[in-house]
Amino acid sequence: MQLLEERIRKDGVVREGNVLKVDSFLNHQIDVSLFQEIGREFLRRYDACSINKILTIEASGIGIACITAQYFQVPVVFAKKNKTSNLSADVYRGRVHSFTHNRDYEIVVGRDFLLPSDRLLILDDFLANGSALEGLLEVVDQSGASVAGAGIVIEKGFQEGGAKIRARGIRVESLAIIDSMDEKNGTICFRTTS
Amino acid sequence: MQLLEERIRKDGVVREGNVLKVDSFLNHQIDVSLFQEIGREFLRRYDACSINKILTIEASGIGIACITAQYFQVPVVFAKKNKTSNLSADVYRGRVHSFTHNRDYEIVVGRDFLLPSDRLLILDDFLANGSALEGLLEVVDQSGASVAGAGIVIEKGFQEGGAKIRARGIRVESLAIIDSMDEKNGTICFRTTS
Repeated sequence: MQLLEERIRKDGVVREGNVLKVDSFLNHQIDVSLFQEIGREFLRRYDACSINKILTIEASGIGIACITAQYFQVPVVFAKKNKTSNLSADVYRGRVHSFTHNRDYEIVVGRDFLLPSDRLLILDDFLANGSALEGLLEVVDQSGASVAGAGIVIEKGFQEGGAKIRARGIRVESLAIIDSMDEKNGTICFRTTS
Repeated sequence: MQLLEERIRKDGVVREGNVLKVDSFLNHQIDVSLFQEIGREFLRRYDACSINKILTIEASGIGIACITAQYFQVPVVFAKKNKTSNLSADVYRGRVHSFTHNRDYEIVVGRDFLLPSDRLLILDDFLANGSALEGLLEVVDQSGASVAGAGIVIEKGFQEGGAKIRARGIRVESLAIIDSMDEKNGTICFRTTS
């Protein structure tokens, strides 16, 4: 998605350790008009897929999911990071490893909000090692819902997440795929996609 | 806001300890079409206030903020819950007490994203004891930005937060104010507002 790639080049900052800071428009400050274009692009790619619900994970997936949901005219469900040792039976659970904070955490979704009849689009801002998406898929598997695919704003194509999720037979549409970044001169190379 | 009060009566569940569960449409599953009406109502109330940015706090404020921001045509900034002991000088900090989890946590906003010239609308899903709003105001005070007011979806009028924030001279617009709830028979009494 050209508009997005241009914005990443303009406002993204490459930091040591393959970190890409996009907090001026994506995951701290949010450019809602860009999100509208992102939402329309997800609709273009998934319009024929009978999606009836969008699933995401707190926190930075929520904005993208809500704006996009307007174009699909469907509700959003966001998985919550479990902060309690609550052993409630009324949730589905998944495990996510945070490489940023170097720890595992549990995510939960209320059983009432994922049904076997649901056809889901899973959205998130980043796909790198794929751990968040794997945690969400673990939750979905328990519910019996089906997954039309995943929609990602920025995929780090040089990390293994995308290949791992696609190898499971899950469709993954990433609006920008970064093949390499260089923090010394700030260059970002995007994969050429359709 | 009548549509919202009707929805709370229909789908809200009153639990022991003055807990109101609205996770089927507000803060776990999200009814985006309801959020659009909420956004339009915030615009109606704050349209003449020269707002140039919406400030909220992760996680459940983000959806309301993003949908509402479309009507104001302004960006969103969300305060992050600080998970690291990062002593970075490039953030403003505030303290929030969570009564649900009975602990304090720090919230941070990057200095680049709150400017003295900003005229803010602060949005959140709930106002009860007012701690989240106080933490956000602490952040805003450091930045020198000004606050046009706060927009709240559901205020628990029987808790002290609303009175406390209004006593500071801050305009607070709550779309539904609950004066009392009864978990035995499930009744919810709303304050009559303009």
